[in-house]
Amino acid sequence: MDFLTGVCTKEVISLSDFIESDEGAQVTMEGAVHSIRNMGEIAFIILRSREGLCQTVWEANKTNLEISELKEASCIRVSGIVKNEERAPHGKELRLSEIVILSNPEAPLPLAVDKWKLNTSLEAKLNMRSISLRNVRERARFKIQEGIVRGFRDYLHTQGFTEIHTPKIGAKGAEGGSNMFKLSYFHKPAVLAQSPQFYKQMMVGVFDRVFEVGPVFRAEKHNTRRHLNEYIGLDFEMGYIDSFLEICQMETEFLQYTMDLLKKEYDKELKLLGVELPNVEKIPYVRFDEAKRLVSEKYDRKMRNPFDLEPEEEELISRYFKEEYDADFVFVTHYPSKKRPFYAMDDPAEPAVTLSFDLLFRGMEITTGGQRIHNYSRLIEKIKKRGMETEGMEQYLSTFEYGMPPHGGLGIGLERLTMKLIGDDNVRETCLFPRDMNRLEP
Amino acid sequence: MDFLTGVCTKEVISLSDFIESDEGAQVTMEGAVHSIRNMGEIAFIILRSREGLCQTVWEANKTNLEISELKEASCIRVSGIVKNEERAPHGKELRLSEIVILSNPEAPLPLAVDKWKLNTSLEAKLNMRSISLRNVRERARFKIQEGIVRGFRDYLHTQGFTEIHTPKIGAKGAEGGSNMFKLSYFHKPAVLAQSPQFYKQMMVGVFDRVFEVGPVFRAEKHNTRRHLNEYIGLDFEMGYIDSFLEICQMETEFLQYTMDLLKKEYDKELKLLGVELPNVEKIPYVRFDEAKRLVSEKYDRKMRNPFDLEPEEEELISRYFKEEYDADFVFVTHYPSKKRPFYAMDDPAEPAVTLSFDLLFRGMEITTGGQRIHNYSRLIEKIKKRGMETEGMEQYLSTFEYGMPPHGGLGIGLERLTMKLIGDDNVRETCLFPRDMNRLEP
Repeated sequence: MDFLTGVCTKEVISLSDFIESDEGAQVTMEGAVHSIRNMGEIAFIILRSREGLCQTVWEANKTNLEISELKEASCIRVSGIVKNEERAPHGKELRLSEIVILSNPEAPLPLAVDKWKLNTSLEAKLNMRSISLRNVRERARFKIQEGIVRGFRDYLHTQGFTEIHTPKIGAKGAEGGSNMFKLSYFHKPAVLAQSPQFYKQMMVGVFDRVFEVGPVFRAEKHNTRRHLNEYIGLDFEMGYIDSFLEICQMETEFLQYTMDLLKKEYDKELKLLGVELPNVEKIPYVRFDEAKRLVSEKYDRKMRNPFDLEPEEEELISRYFKEEYDADFVFVTHYPSKKRPFYAMDDPAEPAVTLSFDLLFRGMEITTGGQRIHNYSRLIEKIKKRGMETEGMEQYLSTFEYGMPPHGGLGIGLERLTMKLIGDDNVRETCLFPRDMNRLEP
Repeated sequence: MDFLTGVCTKEVISLSDFIESDEGAQVTMEGAVHSIRNMGEIAFIILRSREGLCQTVWEANKTNLEISELKEASCIRVSGIVKNEERAPHGKELRLSEIVILSNPEAPLPLAVDKWKLNTSLEAKLNMRSISLRNVRERARFKIQEGIVRGFRDYLHTQGFTEIHTPKIGAKGAEGGSNMFKLSYFHKPAVLAQSPQFYKQMMVGVFDRVFEVGPVFRAEKHNTRRHLNEYIGLDFEMGYIDSFLEICQMETEFLQYTMDLLKKEYDKELKLLGVELPNVEKIPYVRFDEAKRLVSEKYDRKMRNPFDLEPEEEELISRYFKEEYDADFVFVTHYPSKKRPFYAMDDPAEPAVTLSFDLLFRGMEITTGGQRIHNYSRLIEKIKKRGMETEGMEQYLSTFEYGMPPHGGLGIGLERLTMKLIGDDNVRETCLFPRDMNRLEP
């Protein structure tokens, strides 16, 4: 009988191994042909692999293949000798003795992915996503996004949170309203989850602290630079809080941890994109009404809607805190009750506002959170006051009947956070395969 | 201006801190009242928090509250003195001076969650999920599940995989067929993703190695102990493989890493459920036709369908390898081509079978994987031979036109793996909120 033992015996080295190699070492590497610069007797073949680019050198009569046999976008395995070379990336190049072609393309690339900057529209990039992301700067966005998700999970894990997976098909949504995609589920009406809100609250009674990273679906008829109809939510919910500020505190710590992680492990990608990490040592917080007043005074702007922030106001609040306190982030607290969902806890001292917050980052809301009502009677009372139906929420509501700790949580939009961190001006840039009102493919 | 600095100042300690506390220490803890045993002058209050149970002791005239003021399922904050006590869990108890009630339930619990074994049906447990999981053995399943997901991500990260997030709403499914949930997406027909197959392959051309942990939707009309209509897929895809056995090798390493992680960090939960971890030092692999022959001979069973494994055959193959080699897992390789999707690579030496595999674990398939066709012309040829349409697959197919490395990957059903590891007999036990043909709530 044959067995697998989990011991890999391949002798192919990675780019970081190559960078560590001594001059004169004989090594084998794999990758895609990113570009070929043919000088006649010699040719520079830039090899692209998951860690980046590497310069390899073909020499007539020294390398097994003719250079004409090689194409851009071929996948190859190459062997050769490591040579120090100041002008090459990483100060090293590989002088090739052998090239094995693993696969060849059947058509020339439709985009010049080897250029520093892809000279094409967002629309074209999205239409050819699997090609445009072969550009190393384009793909760097998603390494940084990976780092943010790792930071979220790893930090919350150290704080005693349990990761959960809640269903995306359900009978009813958490926020109510018409923003849900509807489907037929074995002849029963169903919706796609617009947030894991109900489930994460229900699980606070079990695990005290929970988080989830998963897709969120919003059938909103917005077609803007900041909206997606499917996005990744970074959600957490924590019990035994004395104040909603503990939730903001936890988010501050997550951001501090994550910026550290990015600095340490994603420096290459940050440099590729010229990203300057924000200062997260301390994050100011300000009441909603106070924030409105501050920007209205400083920028001589008339307040129109006292119950909500317009996108322009979000930008001005961020600008204010950047100018006055050099802050990239600001928590805006105590949102008006009428603009928050029924489960938001009203401030006992001032019932027209809630113990809730948004986090603004460089002019845009990237998080909504707050304390939730944990008392069954008050929850029922608020539902009645709003004239809502409890149908389909029986399981959620009964959880509170059987006791729940004071709790709260938040939801972060991953693509938006990535977008603002990188400095992109369209959230589609930081979503692998965005879904908007017009885009369902690829 | 007020700032958050990410420094938490709360003095509440966790259960593990309590276990490390010295006798005589004054500490504060939080949790839910799991049970109360009232002996008159003293009462034992078992406190449940995320890490487990803790014995606290109320004493008449020494604790601020009357014991009658306390209910099961109240959430409380307690302060007192640590006392060594052999008969208490962890050999310690907390003698209470102060109890603060944070919240009270409004109805008595419908289930005796403090019992060692919840004496109720699966149906009832699922109907009252947020209550039944307050039983520490019930919730332990999901801590173990968390450990499996951590193992998957952490191990693949060390192997140079990039985590991706692919859309769950799309224009067309990866496997074709009728097993998809349909919805209307802004008046356009759309489906829920039955796998991230197309997207993860497309991203192999970008990141070389990718993985995803996310929901998968199957509109299959199965109502069995092993099927869910929404489940969590652990998917990976890797480029530059020489053989599909490298994929099996990677899965073997993931299992080894994960069993180690569970042993180290989830020992408490494994003990609660009496789970014995499987041996994953070496995993046998056997051809599909050979496996069929072996069990047909040993167990004197007639082969009916030469192209697929019946559930009973999966059980017998597992039994065979357990009896003959003491193996809990077995890779079954070279599945017939006609039972695999179009993108599966046929064996050049024997085109009726594919370079693919399933992994069986204790009698059940928990993984399907294999090498994929990476050559554009061959892919088109196979699609034509099957009489399939290419409509809606243009983006996927064009990726191959522009070059792709040899690659393959797999998908693991998280709930099934958890189920077989724990020894449950219904996959609904290891899904927080299962979706099946009859269940859409909670």
